[in-house]
Amino acid sequence: MHTLNVDLGERSYPILIGSGLSRSRELMNAHILGHDAVLISNTIVAPLYAAHVKASLHGRRIIDVIVPDGEQHKTLGNVSRVFDVLIANRLGRDTVVLALGGGVIGDLAGFVAACYQRGVAFVQLPTTLLAQVDSSVGGKTAVNHPGGKNMIGAFHQPHAVLADTEWLRSLPDRELRAGLAEVIKYGLICDPGFFDWIESNIGPLLQRSPDHLGQAIYRSCQIKAQIVARDEREQGERALLNLGHTFGHAIESATGYVEWLHGEAVGTGMLIAADMSQRMGMLDASVVARLKDLLLRAGLPVLAPQIGAARAMDYIRVDKKVKAGRVRLILLQAMGKAVVTATYSDRILEETLAAQFG
Amino acid sequence: MHTLNVDLGERSYPILIGSGLSRSRELMNAHILGHDAVLISNTIVAPLYAAHVKASLHGRRIIDVIVPDGEQHKTLGNVSRVFDVLIANRLGRDTVVLALGGGVIGDLAGFVAACYQRGVAFVQLPTTLLAQVDSSVGGKTAVNHPGGKNMIGAFHQPHAVLADTEWLRSLPDRELRAGLAEVIKYGLICDPGFFDWIESNIGPLLQRSPDHLGQAIYRSCQIKAQIVARDEREQGERALLNLGHTFGHAIESATGYVEWLHGEAVGTGMLIAADMSQRMGMLDASVVARLKDLLLRAGLPVLAPQIGAARAMDYIRVDKKVKAGRVRLILLQAMGKAVVTATYSDRILEETLAAQFG
Repeated sequence: MHTLNVDLGERSYPILIGSGLSRSRELMNAHILGHDAVLISNTIVAPLYAAHVKASLHGRRIIDVIVPDGEQHKTLGNVSRVFDVLIANRLGRDTVVLALGGGVIGDLAGFVAACYQRGVAFVQLPTTLLAQVDSSVGGKTAVNHPGGKNMIGAFHQPHAVLADTEWLRSLPDRELRAGLAEVIKYGLICDPGFFDWIESNIGPLLQRSPDHLGQAIYRSCQIKAQIVARDEREQGERALLNLGHTFGHAIESATGYVEWLHGEAVGTGMLIAADMSQRMGMLDASVVARLKDLLLRAGLPVLAPQIGAARAMDYIRVDKKVKAGRVRLILLQAMGKAVVTATYSDRILEETLAAQFG
Repeated sequence: MHTLNVDLGERSYPILIGSGLSRSRELMNAHILGHDAVLISNTIVAPLYAAHVKASLHGRRIIDVIVPDGEQHKTLGNVSRVFDVLIANRLGRDTVVLALGGGVIGDLAGFVAACYQRGVAFVQLPTTLLAQVDSSVGGKTAVNHPGGKNMIGAFHQPHAVLADTEWLRSLPDRELRAGLAEVIKYGLICDPGFFDWIESNIGPLLQRSPDHLGQAIYRSCQIKAQIVARDEREQGERALLNLGHTFGHAIESATGYVEWLHGEAVGTGMLIAADMSQRMGMLDASVVARLKDLLLRAGLPVLAPQIGAARAMDYIRVDKKVKAGRVRLILLQAMGKAVVTATYSDRILEETLAAQFG
C-alpha cells in the first residue's frame, strides 16, 4: 500500500492507495470517524461495493443516497435532494459524508459536505481511475449549470482519500482509458520522465496490471498533491492541472456532458492545447506527435466534435479561467513544461479552433 | 466614522460604520475592487438605495439582481436563480458580489459569492440594524431548508463591510427593535457594562439618535469581531453568539419564517434561555427580570407562540448545534456571562419548553 500526505496545514489529509484496503476494518475505521455517515453513490457502483464498505464500517448509522450515474446528474437539483435526505434523517454537524464512486459522485458529495450546515467531514472513496488520480484529490467540489460545467462549487478538503485499486477491476475499458488521459496529463505538465514511463508501459496499463496501475496512481497523486499543497485555491500554479480542460469543457458542453467522458474530452483538449502551442511557435511538432500517438495507443479520441469555431469559442468564454474578460489558457512549452498564460494571439486561438472544431 | 478590523489572517477585513459613507466615491472605491459587480438587493431596499450605491461605483459594469423581501425567499431556489443571471451575463471569477439589504440578502448573496465558481469576492452593505450589528459580520452565509433554518451554507468572509447608518432612517420601527434584540445579546453574553448602557439609553436608541446608534453598532461589531477572530469556524466560543438562537429558530420554524422577525425570535429565545438557566439554578432571577424588562421597554415580544413543548422540541432537535445526538445549548451563568453546554437536565429543558411554548 502507498500512503501520501497532502500538506495543507490544519486541512492536511492522507491519500491511501492499495488493493483491498476498503475491506480492512482497521484502515477504514482509522480514517473515517464519527457515528453517523451518509454514503453517496450511484446506481452502478452501489450494487458492486456499498455492501463491503458498510461491512467495514459496521456498528455505525449509515444512510444511503443513491443518485443516477452520469455527469448530467451532477446538478444543484440533486444536491438539493441529498439535503432533503440528510435533514429528514436529522443528521448533525458531526456527520461524515462518504463519496463512493467516480468524479461525478466525488464532486457532488463533496459539495454537499461543503454546504451542509456550513461544512461537515468528507471522505473520498474513488472507484474509477480518473477519480483516483484526479478528482478525489485536491478539495475541488462542484456541480454543473446548464450554462457551464462546475460553475457552482466550493473548495472543501476531504479528511482522507481511500483509493482501493481492486475497484478498478470492474471499470469499463472506456473509463480506464479516460482515466489514463489524466495520468498522461501529469507527465505532460511537469514530468517528462513519467511521460516516457507511460509510453513504455501503456500495454500493461491497458491490461490492468495491478503493479503498473498502482505506480501510475501513486505518481499522479504525488504530483497533484505537491501542486495543490503549493496553491490550494488555484491562485497560480494549480491552474496547470487544468491542461486540456478549457478545450475539453467546450467539447463536453457542446455534447451535453453525455457523449464524451470527461477524461476523453481532456485528452483531446490537451492535444488542441498542444496544437495551439505549436501554432504559436512555442512547442516543437515532435511533442504534439508523441502526444497524439500516445493518446491513440491508449485508445482515446483525438478528433473534437465538429461544432464550428464560433460555438467552441462561446463555450470557452464562460470558462472559469476568465479573468478581466480574457480566458487564460494552459499551453505547452516543452514535454513536461506547461504554462498558464493570458498573452496569446486571438488570431491563433481562432485558427486553432477552426482547425480542430471544423 | 468608526473603523474596526476583523483579524483573520489573510481573510482579515475592515468594518466601516458611519453616516453617509455609501455616498463617498473614495471610500466605496477603496473597498470595492474589480470591474464587474453584481448588486443583490430586495424589492424594498433597491428602490431606496441602489441608485446612490451605483452612482458611487460609477464606471463599472453592475448587474442588478432583485429578490422579493423576506426570510421565506432565502432559499436554494433563489440562489439558483441568481446563478442563472451571473452565468447568463458571463461574469468571471473576478466579479464582486455586493449585498445591499438586511440579513436575508447578506446570507443569500454571501452564499452565492461562496459558491459561484468556487468563491468570488463579496462586500456587505447592510441596511438594517440587525445586519449592521450581526449578520454582515463574521462570514456565515446560508439559506433555509423547509426542514430547518440556515441548514445549507458556507463560511465565506466578506472583503469589507460598509455600514451606512443613514440607511437606518428608513427602517420600520419593528425592524429597529428586532435589531436592538441582537445589541442586547452582546451585553448579555460578555459585557455587563454594555447591558447597563443599553438600559440607560434605550430611549435615545429607539428615537434613532445617530450618536447612540453609532455607539451601539460599534460596540456590538467590536465584540463580534473579537469572538470571530478567536473562533472563525465556530469550534467553540463563537457558539456563544447563538444565545437565544436555538429557541428562536424553533419560534421561526413553527411560524414558517414569516410571522416573527429574526431579532424578535432571538429576543424571546434569549429570555427562554435565561428562564431555563434560572430553572437549572445557574442564574439569579433578577437577571431574568432585568432582561424581560429591557425587552419590553424595547417593544420586543416576550411570549413564544403556543405551539406546545413537543413541537418545539422537534424543531430544536434539527438545530445545527446538535453534536453526537445531543443539542448543545447556550445558557447564562450571570449578566454578561454565557456558556455553551451539552450537560443540562432534559427534564428541565422539557419543563422550560412546557412553560414557554404551552
